[in-house]
Amino acid sequence: MEVRIKILFTSLCHTDVYFWEAKGQNPVFPRILGHEAGGVVESVGEGVTDLEPGDHVLPVFTGECKECAHCKSEESNMCDLLRINTDRGVMIHDQKSRFSINGKPVFHFVGTSTFSEYTVVHVGCLAKINPLAPLDKVCVLSCGISTGLGATLNVAKPKKDSSVAVFGLGAVGLAAAEGARIAGASRIIGVDLNANRFELAKKFGVTEFVNPKDYKKPVQEVIVEMTNGGVDRSVECTGHIDAMISAFECVHDGWGVAVLVGVPHKDAVFKTSPMNLLNERTLKGTFFGNYKPRSDIPSVVEKYMNKELELEKFITHEVPFSEINKAFDLMLKGEGLRCIIRMDA
Amino acid sequence: MEVRIKILFTSLCHTDVYFWEAKGQNPVFPRILGHEAGGVVESVGEGVTDLEPGDHVLPVFTGECKECAHCKSEESNMCDLLRINTDRGVMIHDQKSRFSINGKPVFHFVGTSTFSEYTVVHVGCLAKINPLAPLDKVCVLSCGISTGLGATLNVAKPKKDSSVAVFGLGAVGLAAAEGARIAGASRIIGVDLNANRFELAKKFGVTEFVNPKDYKKPVQEVIVEMTNGGVDRSVECTGHIDAMISAFECVHDGWGVAVLVGVPHKDAVFKTSPMNLLNERTLKGTFFGNYKPRSDIPSVVEKYMNKELELEKFITHEVPFSEINKAFDLMLKGEGLRCIIRMDA
Repeated sequence: MEVRIKILFTSLCHTDVYFWEAKGQNPVFPRILGHEAGGVVESVGEGVTDLEPGDHVLPVFTGECKECAHCKSEESNMCDLLRINTDRGVMIHDQKSRFSINGKPVFHFVGTSTFSEYTVVHVGCLAKINPLAPLDKVCVLSCGISTGLGATLNVAKPKKDSSVAVFGLGAVGLAAAEGARIAGASRIIGVDLNANRFELAKKFGVTEFVNPKDYKKPVQEVIVEMTNGGVDRSVECTGHIDAMISAFECVHDGWGVAVLVGVPHKDAVFKTSPMNLLNERTLKGTFFGNYKPRSDIPSVVEKYMNKELELEKFITHEVPFSEINKAFDLMLKGEGLRCIIRMDA
Repeated sequence: MEVRIKILFTSLCHTDVYFWEAKGQNPVFPRILGHEAGGVVESVGEGVTDLEPGDHVLPVFTGECKECAHCKSEESNMCDLLRINTDRGVMIHDQKSRFSINGKPVFHFVGTSTFSEYTVVHVGCLAKINPLAPLDKVCVLSCGISTGLGATLNVAKPKKDSSVAVFGLGAVGLAAAEGARIAGASRIIGVDLNANRFELAKKFGVTEFVNPKDYKKPVQEVIVEMTNGGVDRSVECTGHIDAMISAFECVHDGWGVAVLVGVPHKDAVFKTSPMNLLNERTLKGTFFGNYKPRSDIPSVVEKYMNKELELEKFITHEVPFSEINKAFDLMLKGEGLRCIIRMDA
């Protein structure tokens, strides 16, 4: 069930940096990082019937076996077999790596390891996409952009002319804003501690900006006042527990829905008054924007192809593979959104 | 916008007892309690066009003005004008009471005050129902039974053959179970500290019983083990904060939905790990089962008329109005579910 793919373009996501820094984790080294990418199938292993050499694919850090209860459920994309596993550095079939150097194994990363000219991926973690789609653009749909976009379109589901608050205006949050723009929201309130983000965020449909640092009261109270009772939907993309609570408490009673995307510190505790729930607010979380990698990601690529979704504005830098460290530097400095890494150079 | 109705049958709900005991509240006395009832319109005031004398109605403790943002939203039933207000003992038009004794006002209770042969109710708090429906049965749809039933049918929305856990097997919880039975759930797990409830609960579709006292581990862990990962839906009807947390943490990742119904202590804090949310669980609260009183309750009465919904099993006692104290005694002892009070006797 394995597929060897030639990676043509990959991009850097915060998750790569997080596991590269290996703080507070069981480090698995040496390993090949990278998980946002686009490539072409080079060869397929035993059991693979869905793909053939030449197919264009996006590898995804989580999979879709199409057999388990989650894959069979319309509501879940948390495949039992291929769900993200950041501790596993091997293939699931034989618990071995497909990479080695001088006879010693080099570990995989979230089943993708796209910082490599060639990689081996379980067929369940590959979305077969339109071969006409430019891989140097749609590669960013492998992770962050789909995560934010799906959080809004698939989970928050704002109605036309509604209001949406987005917490955190990095790539994921801006993709959530882009989802709100596509859904026709009339007020998109961006919340970030960095005021410089606002100018950029306007391109993604953000109409108003709130910096929690500018207020003495909790930001949820600021938003409730701005919106006469709260926003219709909110999407939390920072992973900070206080932002999660604010994102929930800023939605309107009766119909407000808050969607959590950002991954919190493992010891974080979500706390709120249960009356906030009883007044008919909804709190949900999402993983990879609730997209099933194989079933749904091809249609997200089509959204780009028919110009409904704009990906160019997420791509702020481009470097050859030999200069991948520049992409790390940019992310560590918080500059730009996505840096595309060209593997052929 | 006021209507005088002749109450024919009323029943006693925990909320009446709670406000009669007046613990930890601003007491509003003297007042006429009572809010689950059925009656007939005797006369209508200025501005009332939807009702006329002779119409059969159920008074409801919360209203539907049909004008505010909540009433216009498909998702909310929390009317801005007529939302429950337990502190207000007067009519909203002139802030005065329509009851008096020896010239001194007697206060209203949640806009209904049905422990009275005649009462005055805002037209927005009256559901006009099928005149063929027996008021001595459908009067229980004024509050608790609709609350539990709607929590399941309108909010949790279990699919056919799914599993549902119901926390608290009083009248509201059993109505939630009845909703799960109507929806075709195949496993309905009742959770209560009183094992005697199980035999009764079977009539409402409960298939399995869990008493948290029988286990050393948290009840959510017991339910997760029983159901291979968690129930598809849960409905919390006790209002105890620990039960709320258990009800949320016992639903399956990927698709589980927990619905909170029970009203907590005002200082209660809901706490959970945000990872429980990020793994695609949903937490919602509901108020009056998300039914809009005027728009939706008539169709719940029809569910009873076409034998989809069984109300007789909720009605365990009946007394004449002169013996209303017996109804209080029964509830304080925890005996039975609903006691119908006949106003003509």
